[in-house]
Amino acid sequence: MRSIDLNADLGEGFGRWTLGDDEALLDIVTSANVACGFHAGDPSTMNRICLAAVERGVAIGAQVGYRDLAGFGRRRIDYDLGELRDDILYQVGALEAFCRAAGGSVDYVKPHGALYNTAAVDDGQASAVVAAVRAYDPALPVLCQPGSALARLATVAGLTVVGEGFADRGYRPDGTLVPRTAAGALIDDPKLVVAQAVRMVVDGEVVTPDGDVVPCQVASICVHGDTPGAVELAGQVRAGLVDAGHTVAPFVTWRA
Amino acid sequence: MRSIDLNADLGEGFGRWTLGDDEALLDIVTSANVACGFHAGDPSTMNRICLAAVERGVAIGAQVGYRDLAGFGRRRIDYDLGELRDDILYQVGALEAFCRAAGGSVDYVKPHGALYNTAAVDDGQASAVVAAVRAYDPALPVLCQPGSALARLATVAGLTVVGEGFADRGYRPDGTLVPRTAAGALIDDPKLVVAQAVRMVVDGEVVTPDGDVVPCQVASICVHGDTPGAVELAGQVRAGLVDAGHTVAPFVTWRA
Amino acid sequence: MRSIDLNADLGEGFGRWTLGDDEALLDIVTSANVACGFHAGDPSTMNRICLAAVERGVAIGAQVGYRDLAGFGRRRIDYDLGELRDDILYQVGALEAFCRAAGGSVDYVKPHGALYNTAAVDDGQASAVVAAVRAYDPALPVLCQPGSALARLATVAGLTVVGEGFADRGYRPDGTLVPRTAAGALIDDPKLVVAQAVRMVVDGEVVTPDGDVVPCQVASICVHGDTPGAVELAGQVRAGLVDAGHTVAPFVTWRA
Amino acid sequence: MRSIDLNADLGEGFGRWTLGDDEALLDIVTSANVACGFHAGDPSTMNRICLAAVERGVAIGAQVGYRDLAGFGRRRIDYDLGELRDDILYQVGALEAFCRAAGGSVDYVKPHGALYNTAAVDDGQASAVVAAVRAYDPALPVLCQPGSALARLATVAGLTVVGEGFADRGYRPDGTLVPRTAAGALIDDPKLVVAQAVRMVVDGEVVTPDGDVVPCQVASICVHGDTPGAVELAGQVRAGLVDAGHTVAPFVTWRA
Repeated sequence: MRSIDLNADLGEGFGRWTLGDDEALLDIVTSANVACGFHAGDPSTMNRICLAAVERGVAIGAQVGYRDLAGFGRRRIDYDLGELRDDILYQVGALEAFCRAAGGSVDYVKPHGALYNTAAVDDGQASAVVAAVRAYDPALPVLCQPGSALARLATVAGLTVVGEGFADRGYRPDGTLVPRTAAGALIDDPKLVVAQAVRMVVDGEVVTPDGDVVPCQVASICVHGDTPGAVELAGQVRAGLVDAGHTVAPFVTWRA
Repeated sequence: MRSIDLNADLGEGFGRWTLGDDEALLDIVTSANVACGFHAGDPSTMNRICLAAVERGVAIGAQVGYRDLAGFGRRRIDYDLGELRDDILYQVGALEAFCRAAGGSVDYVKPHGALYNTAAVDDGQASAVVAAVRAYDPALPVLCQPGSALARLATVAGLTVVGEGFADRGYRPDGTLVPRTAAGALIDDPKLVVAQAVRMVVDGEVVTPDGDVVPCQVASICVHGDTPGAVELAGQVRAGLVDAGHTVAPFVTWRA
Repeated sequence: MRSIDLNADLGEGFGRWTLGDDEALLDIVTSANVACGFHAGDPSTMNRICLAAVERGVAIGAQVGYRDLAGFGRRRIDYDLGELRDDILYQVGALEAFCRAAGGSVDYVKPHGALYNTAAVDDGQASAVVAAVRAYDPALPVLCQPGSALARLATVAGLTVVGEGFADRGYRPDGTLVPRTAAGALIDDPKLVVAQAVRMVVDGEVVTPDGDVVPCQVASICVHGDTPGAVELAGQVRAGLVDAGHTVAPFVTWRA
Repeated sequence: MRSIDLNADLGEGFGRWTLGDDEALLDIVTSANVACGFHAGDPSTMNRICLAAVERGVAIGAQVGYRDLAGFGRRRIDYDLGELRDDILYQVGALEAFCRAAGGSVDYVKPHGALYNTAAVDDGQASAVVAAVRAYDPALPVLCQPGSALARLATVAGLTVVGEGFADRGYRPDGTLVPRTAAGALIDDPKLVVAQAVRMVVDGEVVTPDGDVVPCQVASICVHGDTPGAVELAGQVRAGLVDAGHTVAPFVTWRA
C-alpha cells in the first residue's frame, strides 16, 4: 500500500474561451498543472485556479508551454534554446505571483504539449527545461515521463524528477506511448483505464497492446478533463486507486 | 545635500526589435523600469537586463503595462479592473523569475504608458494597480507621480509611494504635466533640463512655462533613452545632480 | 409583407477553443458576421465558415474588432484613428481571401463588441470604420444600429447603411439599448423575443420596458448563438418571422 | 542584355518598433516583399509601404511567414498543413486590402524566414504554400529559390515560379546556400557582392567558395536592408547591374 498523486491540466481556457470543467477536476486531482499564458491560461484564470487549488490543498504545477496560443502549444517549434529557457522561466514566475497571492507556491514544473513531447526525446529542449528550473529553484521537482530525455537530464542536473503514467494511453514495449495517430493510442473502456492505473501503482508496470509487460514506476497518474466524460472517468480512476487501498495525495506531501 | 534616484525605461524591445541603448542607460541610471512582456519586453531581454542591472547594483522595477504589443501600451484600454489587477500581478511575477535567476529581486512597480496616465487620474485603474501590489507584496514601493490618483490610493492602502519628476517635461500650475500635444510639453535645451532636475531635487519645486513655482517633492528623476541624444542628456542630468552635491543612488537603498 | 435578414456572429472560436454552434446557426441565419482574427477567429475557422456559408447561400460579413484576443474585443481601446482604420482594412482583406477561396466575397462589414458600441456614439471611431470601408470598397454595406454615429457618418459618406434590431434586448425611448448592466437589458421569454422581432419587421417599431413605442426601421434582426438555448431561440425567431408571412433572406439579395 | 528585378524585405517593423530603412530601399528595389503581420508588419506599416510602392511603380509581394512575432518567423514550426495554408491565405488577403486602397494589387508571394527555408526542402510545407496561392489566385507568381521543393511543387501545380538569387550569400555546389552558421555564408566585400549579382544575371551562374561554377537562373536578385550599410550595398548592386547594361524593373512587368 502506498501513496499516489493524480494530476491533470487545468486553466486551459483563455479570456472568453473555456476548456474542460476545472472546478470538477479540482475535486478529483491532487496536483493541478496550471497553464501559464503561453499556450493557454489568461492571468484571471490562473488566479482563480490558484485560489481554488490552495483552498482544496491541491498542489500547483507550472504547466509551461511554447508561445503559441493559436496552436495551443501543440506544434513543435525549433526554439533557440536560450529563448526557450527564458520563456519557461517567465511562465513559472508569472504563475508564482498568483500562487503567492493565494497563499501557496509553485510546487513543480510540467511541460505541455509539443514541449512535453519534444523534451522527452530531444536533449536540447530537455536541457532548456532543466536550465529554467535550476535557475528558478533547484529544489523544484519536474513532473515528466520516466525514461524520457527530460527525466534523464534533470536527474543528471540534480533536480527532483517525478515520474507520471497515463491511465488511458497505450504503451509500447520501450515504455513510450503509442502515438495518437496509431491504433491502440487511447484506451476507451473505463474499466481498462482504471485497471491500468491501479497496475501502474501497485505493480509498477504496464501492459502493451501485444501483452508485453513493461516496467513503469510512477508517483503520479495523469488524467484528462477536456473531453466528454473525462471528468467522470477521472473520478473512476481515483475511486479505483482508493479501492485498491492507496492514499491519493499530492506527491509533494509524501515524496522525499 | 541629499540622495536622489535616476530611473529610466529599459528592455523595451521585443524579439527581433530593439529600442534605445539599454547598456548605456544602465551605466547612468540607478533604477531600471524593466518592461515585462505586455507592452514590450520579451523574456530573453528581461533576463539580459536583470543580469546587467544586478551586476551594476541598479535597482529593478516592474514596468507593468496593458496587454497591447501593437500599441506599445500607449492606448487607454477600459479593462475590467479584476483583469487589470491580474495582468499586473502576472507581469510582476514574470519579472521576479529573472531577478531571482540573476540574484536580485523586483524592487518596485511603475506603471507604463497609458496605464501610468490613466492610473494618475482614474481611481478604478489606480486601485487595480494598488490591489496587484498588495496581493504580491505590500512592502513593494510604487513609483509614480506625486499628487496622482495612484499616489493617493497607494498611500491610503499603506503602500510605500515614491514620487518621481520629469527633467524634460513642462509642468502645469496644478503639478501635472503639459500634455504632449500642447506647446511646452518637452524641454529641448539640455541646460534647462539639467536645471529643472536640480531644482526639483534641491528645492522640491518646478517652474511652469508661465513662471509659476510649483511644489514637486520627488525621490527619483525619470530620464529617457529612446530618442537620439537621449542617453547623452541622461548623462548630463546625472552629472548635474552630482555637481550639485547629491548622491545618485537607488531609492530603495536610502529611502526608509 | 416584406423580406427580412437574420444575422449572427459566427466563427468566434480561436485555435483550440470554440464558441457557440456555428453549424446550427448557419442553417438559421441568412447573414454570417464572421470574426476576422483580431478579437476571435483563427484563419482555419474563417475558412470553414466561409465554405459553409457559401454552400448555404448565407451572406458573409466582416465582423471587425479591436486587436484584443484576451478581451474578446469587448474592452474599449483608445486607438489612434488611422491605426484603427488600418486594423479594420486588414481584417476585411483577410476575410476576403477565404471568401474568394470559397467562391464568394465579403458582402458587408459589421463592427464587433466595444468597437460596435464605441462607433455608435463616438464620431472619431465611427469615422475610422467609414474610412476603412470607403478605402476598401465604397459599395460595401455597413450593418449597424439605426441612429448611431456610425449610421449617420456612413450615410454622409455615401455608404450603404443597413439597420439592424435586436430581438432579445430591451430598448430605451431614444432608440438605444438598455445597457447590459441595467434591469431590462435582456428579454428572457422566447415569446416576447419573437414578438419583438416580428413587431420590428412588421411595424418598424419597438416597445420599451415602460411601454413607449419607438420607431425602429431595420432590415436585419440580430440573433445570438453563444449561450445555452440560443440556437433554439434563433430558430424560433426565424419561424416567427416566416409565420408572420415574411421572406427570410440575406439583405444583400433584396436590398437595393 | 536583359531585364532583372531587385527584391527586398520591407515593412518588417511592428507598432513602435522599426527595422531597416524602408523609404531608402523603396528607391532602389523594384519588388517589395511586404511583411503581412504574422512575423512582422502591423497594418499601418503595411498601408504606408503599399502607398509608397504604388507611387514608385514598385511591385508588391506578400511576404508570408509563420505566426510568430516573438521569433520573427525564424523558428521552424511544425504546422498542421491545412492551418499553414490558411495562415498564408489570411496574410495575402490582408495585404491585398492595402494594395487595393493604394490603387495596386498583390503581385506575388514570397515566404519568409523559417517558412522560406522549410518550404525549400519540405514537400509538406511547400505544398501548403502552393495550396494557398492556388486557392487565392492561380495566376499569382511565387518568388523562391530555384531548385527548391517549393519551386518544384509550384511548377507541378501550374503556378508561375520566379527564381531569385542572393547577391551576398555563399552558394554550395548543389545550388543551395551556405548555412548562416558556416564559414562563407556571407560575402562582405561590396565588390564581390556586386560581381556575384552581375554574374548571376549575365551568365546565369554562381561561383562557390571552392571555385565551383553552379548554374543559377534567376529573374530577381534579393538584397537586404536591415543591417548597417545594407542600403548602400543594395544601391551598389543596382548600379552594378545597370552598368552591366541591364534594365532593372519589376519582374511582373517583363516576365511572361
